[in-house]
Formats: sequence, structure tokens, C-alpha cells
Amino acid sequence: MKVDSAAFFYLRMPRIRDIGDGSQDACLVRLRAGRHEGWGQCEASPLPTIAAWDCPMSHSACHPVRDSVLGKRVDSPADIRAINESVRALSLDLLQAAHTLSGVDIALWDLLGKKMGEPVWSLLGYRKAYPKLPYASVLFGNTPRRTYERALLIRGAGFRAAKFGWGPYGRGTVREDAAQVHAAREGLGREASLLIDAGTVWVDDVAAAAGRLKALKECRARWLEEPFVSGALGSYSKLARMSGRVGLAGGEGAHDYHMAANLIEYGKVGFIQVDTGRIGGITTAKQVADLAEKKGVKYVNHTFTSHLSLCASLQPYAGLRDHELCEYPVESSVMSSALTRTRLEPGPDGFVRVPGRPGLGIAPDPAVIRRYRVPVLIRCRIRGRGSRKRQKET
Amino acid sequence: MKVDSAAFFYLRMPRIRDIGDGSQDACLVRLRAGRHEGWGQCEASPLPTIAAWDCPMSHSACHPVRDSVLGKRVDSPADIRAINESVRALSLDLLQAAHTLSGVDIALWDLLGKKMGEPVWSLLGYRKAYPKLPYASVLFGNTPRRTYERALLIRGAGFRAAKFGWGPYGRGTVREDAAQVHAAREGLGREASLLIDAGTVWVDDVAAAAGRLKALKECRARWLEEPFVSGALGSYSKLARMSGRVGLAGGEGAHDYHMAANLIEYGKVGFIQVDTGRIGGITTAKQVADLAEKKGVKYVNHTFTSHLSLCASLQPYAGLRDHELCEYPVESSVMSSALTRTRLEPGPDGFVRVPGRPGLGIAPDPAVIRRYRVPVLIRCRIRGRGSRKRQKET
Repeated sequence: MKVDSAAFFYLRMPRIRDIGDGSQDACLVRLRAGRHEGWGQCEASPLPTIAAWDCPMSHSACHPVRDSVLGKRVDSPADIRAINESVRALSLDLLQAAHTLSGVDIALWDLLGKKMGEPVWSLLGYRKAYPKLPYASVLFGNTPRRTYERALLIRGAGFRAAKFGWGPYGRGTVREDAAQVHAAREGLGREASLLIDAGTVWVDDVAAAAGRLKALKECRARWLEEPFVSGALGSYSKLARMSGRVGLAGGEGAHDYHMAANLIEYGKVGFIQVDTGRIGGITTAKQVADLAEKKGVKYVNHTFTSHLSLCASLQPYAGLRDHELCEYPVESSVMSSALTRTRLEPGPDGFVRVPGRPGLGIAPDPAVIRRYRVPVLIRCRIRGRGSRKRQKET
Repeated sequence: MKVDSAAFFYLRMPRIRDIGDGSQDACLVRLRAGRHEGWGQCEASPLPTIAAWDCPMSHSACHPVRDSVLGKRVDSPADIRAINESVRALSLDLLQAAHTLSGVDIALWDLLGKKMGEPVWSLLGYRKAYPKLPYASVLFGNTPRRTYERALLIRGAGFRAAKFGWGPYGRGTVREDAAQVHAAREGLGREASLLIDAGTVWVDDVAAAAGRLKALKECRARWLEEPFVSGALGSYSKLARMSGRVGLAGGEGAHDYHMAANLIEYGKVGFIQVDTGRIGGITTAKQVADLAEKKGVKYVNHTFTSHLSLCASLQPYAGLRDHELCEYPVESSVMSSALTRTRLEPGPDGFVRVPGRPGLGIAPDPAVIRRYRVPVLIRCRIRGRGSRKRQKET
């Protein structure tokens, strides 16, 4: 089959709050090929992402993403990989292209799976999809008290692992941060895995991060996530030498395979957490999962939004039994929570299972798209051709 | 003074050819503050770059670039650095933001220089701007014969260094590539510096690149540029161990300080060539120049477009005497060549000098902007507010 058409959908909550909650808007991609339809989600700012799909070519290494996708054959995993390579070459100088590609690549795998009658993880070469242990992913409360209460709720909901991040963490004193971490541990109880996410707050400042290690060790945090921006490899490796049993985690900022590989090779992270919706989709994320398996580093999905994204993010490592943890959004916006009617709820054993249906096995609810959709118009008039490029909502 | 307003201009040749010539369109930024005006150029796909300036916020780490710029004070270099840090934090998850920031940052330095009555290089702390030896930067011909003819012309024009890149290089056999390199050396004569640019053609394939080293060594190429994509640090360092007196060069794909620093630290490049119009502007490029000086690596500008970009790209290392080479566009489109009335022509001694006038000392010609401007409209309607975000041409 050939990719016949593509449509992008910008969904948005009526009011966006200035907090670290990426589920307040969404950028969806729908591809059609013959009688099949595939869906993907870019974890990205919608307007630049849509513009990168459909803008005019600037030169031979700055093509819009569509030039590598529309009209191309998709009959095998190799075809999808070829489209990925084409985007990386033809859109080399178009920075946003990686985020656009991510949703497109997910939709391509969904399409191919539906055509072949196979789940995506099977097309990726896995013979079995192992259950994953979800950790509840939430923001720190504004006070240790609020964090404690959130932890209690998570414990009550049956989660055996939880991650607290962003909010005030890293912005106050070492003592204030310690109080937050202790509050989270106290609320979760002694048994649950505690994970802490600093959201790049120290940029590349090793001393600032190192000051927080004492509390993290006392509270037996399993990892410290994103103490630094993704490129600060030297800072990651220095901190890794001091962090003892607290592993370093990172990678959500990676937008290609090499950035993630460098975090493993040079940054010495113990957990690599790329976002399938940013790194280039399932194709690139699977390459990172293969590398993690080879290097003895744990692969963990990064997902904070919808169950469409969650489902896509589980495919690349579905068949890796020893990579057991999975990030599980529990505080998503009403819109992101409702986006798919099918939800990947944890089973009675507490584990999450990826669907066995063809493709992703999950799709957005058209009613939710209609309700939250923002009409988009991107247009430029090119002289001498009388033509107009435009990108509209569907 | 405060940044009162910003305007983006998308300029474009009537016909864009599918070749490695980035001068066929342009994305200009004009900032106004009080009675002053500053200009910058993003080396970037215009539509996504403009969208990243003005799109709605997605969450606290995915703000449009404008949120860190409009209304902000610009009275000192520290103020510009603060704006840069703000963009990196508030637009962390907006990939295209680095390219948008680049033109904005250049315009901020131009503004501040005009207000203070000082050239930008002086504001950066340099007491003197040293002349730079320009190398003519051209594409390989489609045949060795055409490459030889181009080299002859460059030699006749008085250039003492030249770089050949892209085109067929790396896409054919080792023998065909060798013929190209020999043709370039023959045309240039024995004395001139010969530089070769592979334009990331081997992605991360060390063996493919290593196969070309023999001809490069025979022809005394001073460097091999971008054998790999910017993130392929391991491939760079492996090739560096084999390349002998042929240095490795790279960095134009870097869109933040850490990517460039990693190429020096882990990739072992001998020449770091960031593009001021992509890495985040003059502020970030100056940080890279400082690091290069400290690490004994040569800083070289990356510039293939207008003399506005050329002038901006010389500021970050204007005061570093030992970093003498500068990329000098000689095959730019009519539009890019004509963009500024002032041009940085080489003097009788063959060297290029950065202006001593306030700010950049160079500005776009309004007539050229009017002639090549493409009207742009980016709009989305946000429910419940009845408001519209729009970005228009000026």
C-alpha cells in the first residue's frame, strides 16, 4: 500500500496552565493508505510540528517531512525504516522535523500492523509482549504536605512504584528538596520504588545536583531523572560516579538515536527514557531499546499524556522481559485521559499489558477530537506560481 | 531599553533547486526597542521557525520564544544572556526554538551595540577584531572536470583557501570521490588550503569515511568536514584516530552549547564550525569559541548565505587571533548576495575584516526584502477566548 494522505490535529484544553503538565494539548497524526488508517501522536508544540510537515523546501537538506512520506510504499518494516532514513537526510536542517516524524512513524507502524493483521511489537520482531510494572508519574506538590498526600493516594491506588518531579524540586534549598523527597517516601511506604525527576533544573551544574544526593540515598530513590539537559554528557558522567545506588535516568530530550546512545555511552545513565513521540517514533525508539539491552542499561518509556502515546511508547521494549518498569500517566488532563476509549488499565496483578490487536490496538475517539480541536491555518504565498501552500484541520 | 516589537521576514528565490545551497531562502528577524532597530538571520526553515516564535504555550517547558523576549530589558550583555537562558528553560521541549532564538539573539546584540555605540565584538569583550582569511565555500561540480574549473576560478579570484562539498561527493565510489578531490587540488594549485565537506553523507559509518582518507591525505586536505551527523560522537572519535594530518571538522548541526562541546570533548574534532544562525546566536557561539580556545581546537564560522549572516558569524571569534580561517560564501543566490548593500569584501591583502561600526555594522536592504518577501499567515483559533493568534509579514 502507499501513503495516500495525512492529516494533523491540534487538540487543546480550553485553558493551559503554566505548569509541567504536557497533557494539556496534543498533536495527532492520521495517515491513510488504501482502506487502512493509522494514528500517531507527537509530543510536541503543535504549530511548528505541523509547519515542519508542510512548509516549502529550503534546499536539498531542508525538505518538509511530507516529501519523505506521501506516496511512499509501506509494505514491510524495512519500508518504514527507509522513510525514517529519508526524513533524517532530506530534513537534516529542519530541526522540528524529528518531532513531526515521531507521530508520523507511529502512525506508519499502526497502518502496517493493521494491514498485516499483527500487533506492532510483533512486527518489531518480538515473539511475546511482557507485562510492565507501571509507576505513577506525578508532579511534586507545592509543599511536602501535598506531596505526602499525593503519595498516599498513589499507594492507596495500588501502585508499587511512583515518580515525583518538576514543581518546586531543585528550585529551593537542599533542605527544602530533601523534605519533599522524604515526604514522598513516607507517603509511599517502605516497599514501593521511589523515583525522582528534576526536569533539567540544574542544566549542567554538577555541584547543585550532588547536593541533593544525600536525601535521595536516605530515601532509597531508585533513580534521579534529568538532573541536566540531555546534551550535558560530562555532567551526567561526573554525577554518576557519585550517585551510588541511585541510578541516573534521562533521554526524554533526545530527538535522534545518537543523542540517546551518547547518554548511555558517555553520560553513564543507568536508565534510558526516550519519548517515542519525540525521538523519531517507534523505529528510533526500538534502536535505542536494542542498544540498552546490549549495554545492560534499563529502557523505560517516557510518557505523560494519552493512552495512545502510552501504547506507542510500550511497543519498542514490549518484548524485553528484564526492562520491567513503565511510566504511567495518572494526572493527565481530562482531554488526554479521554482521548482513547480503550485504556491500558493495570490488571489485578498491578501490571499493564500492551494490546494483542493489529497495529497499536488503540485509536483516538472522534468525539474527543471534535470537542478539543483547534483549527489551524498555515499559509504562504509563493510569487510567480500563484499557488498557496496551506495546512488545514480536517 | 525594552524589546518593543519583533517581525519575521521570509524571503525566497522564485525557484528553489533541490541542491545543497542554503542561500535560496532566508528567515530574517527585526527587533525594535525605543528608537533602535536590530537585525538577525536564522539559518532555518522559515515557517516552523516563525511558528516557534508565536505559537500558543503547550506547558511550562514549551513556551513560544516570544515569551522570553518581548518586553524584556536589554541594557547589557548580561541581559541578553538572561534572555538566552530563559528561552532554553521555557522552550526546552520546543525543538525549533533554538533556530528561532538564533536570529533573535543576533538582533539583540545588534540592538545593544547600536544603543551603546559599540561593535558587537567589543561588547563580547574583545579589544581588537583580527582579520580573517576567507576560504571560498562552493559545491563540488557534478564531474571532476567541473570541480577543476571551479577551483581554477577560485584561484584566479585570489583565494588562498577553498572548500568543496556536497554534490556527488560520498555518493559514488571511493575512486570517483578521489577523482573529485584530486581535481579540486589540481585546480587550486599546490599552495592553497584545500578543505572537503562530506555533508553528513556517511551518517555514522566509519568504514565508508575511512575509505576516503587516502585521497584526502594525498591531496593534503586540511580537513574533512561532517563525515557524520553531529551526534555520532563515537564515529567521529574513531575516524579522528585514523585521519592523521587531515583534521576532522563539524558542528553546523549543533543547536546548543553542549552539542558543540561534545564534538570537541568526545568527537575529537580539530575544527569546530558552529553556525551562529542555528546554535542559538552570538551568545552561544561565543561560549563555543571560548571553549575552543581553551581546548586548542580551531573555531571556524559556518556560513553559506548572506553577508548579514557572515558578519554575525564572525563576531564570536573576531578577537581570537589564532583562529584565522573563515568560511566565505561565493556562490550565494542573487537574493542572498544582494541582501545587504554593505558587503565584507576581502581587502587587497586577501583578508576579511568585520566592521568597526556600532552593532553588526551591516543591515538588510529594504528593497531586497520587498522584492523577495513571501507573505506568511499562521493562525489558530482558540475556543472560549474568541481570540486569534496570528503571525503576519510586516
